Amino acid sequence: MPTVKLVDEQSASPRVKAIFDDIKATKKIDFVPNFWRALAAHPDNLERAWNQGKSIMKDGKISLLLKEIVAVAVSVTNSCRYCINAHTAACLKLGLDQESLGEVLAVIGLYNQFNKMADAFQIEPDILPKLE
Amino acid sequence: MPTVKLVDEQSASPRVKAIFDDIKATKKIDFVPNFWRALAAHPDNLERAWNQGKSIMKDGKISLLLKEIVAVAVSVTNSCRYCINAHTAACLKLGLDQESLGEVLAVIGLYNQFNKMADAFQIEPDILPKLE
Amino acid sequence: MPTVKLVDEQSASPRVKAIFDDIKATKKIDFVPNFWRALAAHPDNLERAWNQGKSIMKDGKISLLLKEIVAVAVSVTNSCRYCINAHTAACLKLGLDQESLGEVLAVIGLYNQFNKMADAFQIEPDILPKLE
Amino acid sequence: MPTVKLVDEQSASPRVKAIFDDIKATKKIDFVPNFWRALAAHPDNLERAWNQGKSIMKDGKISLLLKEIVAVAVSVTNSCRYCINAHTAACLKLGLDQESLGEVLAVIGLYNQFNKMADAFQIEPDILPKLE
Amino acid sequence: MPTVKLVDEQSASPRVKAIFDDIKATKKIDFVPNFWRALAAHPDNLERAWNQGKSIMKDGKISLLLKEIVAVAVSVTNSCRYCINAHTAACLKLGLDQESLGEVLAVIGLYNQFNKMADAFQIEPDILPKLE
Amino acid sequence: MPTVKLVDEQSASPRVKAIFDDIKATKKIDFVPNFWRALAAHPDNLERAWNQGKSIMKDGKISLLLKEIVAVAVSVTNSCRYCINAHTAACLKLGLDQESLGEVLAVIGLYNQFNKMADAFQIEPDILPKLE
Repeated sequence: MPTVKLVDEQSASPRVKAIFDDIKATKKIDFVPNFWRALAAHPDNLERAWNQGKSIMKDGKISLLLKEIVAVAVSVTNSCRYCINAHTAACLKLGLDQESLGEVLAVIGLYNQFNKMADAFQIEPDILPKLE
Repeated sequence: MPTVKLVDEQSASPRVKAIFDDIKATKKIDFVPNFWRALAAHPDNLERAWNQGKSIMKDGKISLLLKEIVAVAVSVTNSCRYCINAHTAACLKLGLDQESLGEVLAVIGLYNQFNKMADAFQIEPDILPKLE
Repeated sequence: MPTVKLVDEQSASPRVKAIFDDIKATKKIDFVPNFWRALAAHPDNLERAWNQGKSIMKDGKISLLLKEIVAVAVSVTNSCRYCINAHTAACLKLGLDQESLGEVLAVIGLYNQFNKMADAFQIEPDILPKLE
Repeated sequence: MPTVKLVDEQSASPRVKAIFDDIKATKKIDFVPNFWRALAAHPDNLERAWNQGKSIMKDGKISLLLKEIVAVAVSVTNSCRYCINAHTAACLKLGLDQESLGEVLAVIGLYNQFNKMADAFQIEPDILPKLE
Repeated sequence: MPTVKLVDEQSASPRVKAIFDDIKATKKIDFVPNFWRALAAHPDNLERAWNQGKSIMKDGKISLLLKEIVAVAVSVTNSCRYCINAHTAACLKLGLDQESLGEVLAVIGLYNQFNKMADAFQIEPDILPKLE
Repeated sequence: MPTVKLVDEQSASPRVKAIFDDIKATKKIDFVPNFWRALAAHPDNLERAWNQGKSIMKDGKISLLLKEIVAVAVSVTNSCRYCINAHTAACLKLGLDQESLGEVLAVIGLYNQFNKMADAFQIEPDILPKLE
């Protein structure tokens, strides 16, 4: 049972409806994902989150695909079911092939292991050349 | 104080010394990072971890730089000080510029927020087209 | 499938039954939540956990509602499905309105993002005035 | 060593300087916290993060103090050193007394324990009355 | 919906089939757990992960049961549903009785609480006698 | 800077002093660890936490050493510096040798990796024989 009621497109207020339309147009999908429908229970949160996400998740200095790969890495490390599902699908839709996905998952697994081993040893960061 | 004694190159056993040499050659660095010096307290662990890391962290279907970016995303999400430091430096060494790093960090921050909001709502994953 | 068998009220031992009755009376509910039914598989754990929870989750210097809001913040950050559900419901039952819940969720989302960005930067805590 | 160079007020660009001034005025402090100085390495991130934070962290339906208490709960659960320090200080500055802080910490500890016990049992959420 | 297609024994390639057979023989089970069936979508990952797991999860200086108990502690702390289920079952199969399981769970709960309280206080590690 | 002032033995109230003495006697150490000195800022929390810890961390159905190993597994997975340090030291003091510690760390690393891979795949728990 969701913690808030999901807003559907039919009953959305004009303010929420406009954001729903922008979501569908920007993401080129024909439905409003549950994440945004849940956020719509609190329109200020919906607007703030959508504007933030829209301004970040687009091609920039790095590609949208690379950003979606980073989203998978974060979502897996946080064990977020909803987000793992959504961002893995986004990567595949943007052209990541299964073999490359396998490499991404291997790296994610590796560093979840190495991160904790580094913590276990309580080692200090290596002294590296300074940032210029 | 590290939880195990760091092994240094001078006092390393031949088995450990050979791995240390391979680490320096493979990573093109002139020192053995503390992570591997700590692992060397347990040579079986060192050998297993190094072989695993070496087989994953190389150019493949996706580039080593993309893999290092994934390593940063995992390490930040796990809040691993040692690894954030090491992998951010590796990204910069492999040519990631500061502006691109800024975009990576924005994506990492965004999904640490959105992951928890999705969890808060307890929403079900969207029904997406099947994997072929 | 739960990892332990849930104890039901009918088959509970007198020791467990007494705690179940105290749970229902204290929380003013007419069923024993699954959390306590699972803990009852190990009566020492049940008794210890219930006594601890009962002594903390009551009006004190800060109100029970504020404590339930803190419980939501912890549970969302830990992505605990069972607990998010239970403590969100407790907040609403204690009078938190939907708009206030929206503000709580916005703050929880914000700091899950900012926490990780602070970790990413590896910044030192600011020097603040001393605790008196 | 921070992962990015901290921007100081003297060398900040006019765009960054204006945000720094707004931070100091809004938070009624006479220095720019390291978090914002690090974000300033990427001015788009600084502007986006500051606007988001400013719009959330103010008195609303719930008080700023309650929001800072939620920030402490999130930051402790994420083990974020920088943020624990900053938000505990903010709570005390806003008038939370030591005894109340002790109650907040007890609740945070309690649910970090109970969250994991609930996960360990793999129990289903209780069936609760529907959200209206 | 799994993020990758689960490979079943009938359609597995000879390379994957050989690993599946080794998994069943080593673990003395008559089915291939979903974890390994999912990994099989990327045979390099399957081979690497299985070899790593097989070399670690066997009686050594410490017993396999103790290792499975450690696996439960890690899996609960990470809130990994699949793994909590699998490793709790493995402990019981290896002879851990319900009362001992209760003690393990109490310790896991205790330190998930104390870990966060220690983080909340931002205390320095105690000065302890040096490692020899 | 700790978030609360550490209480020292000289200035402790009689109630706190009695608990400090019990800590030293029970743990057979001649100083009060910082964790308990920080908790002492809130005597109710100190008393509750100490009583809980004392009742769990003793030989029972499973040994104190096994419990300390579980504490290491939890603390590493939570990346708790203070606790990793304290519980690794406790294991060594109770007789765990370096080689066994290496095996424990390998298992902890392994499952931090496998937990996240299982989450990445979004697989359902295997159907296992029922709990009796």
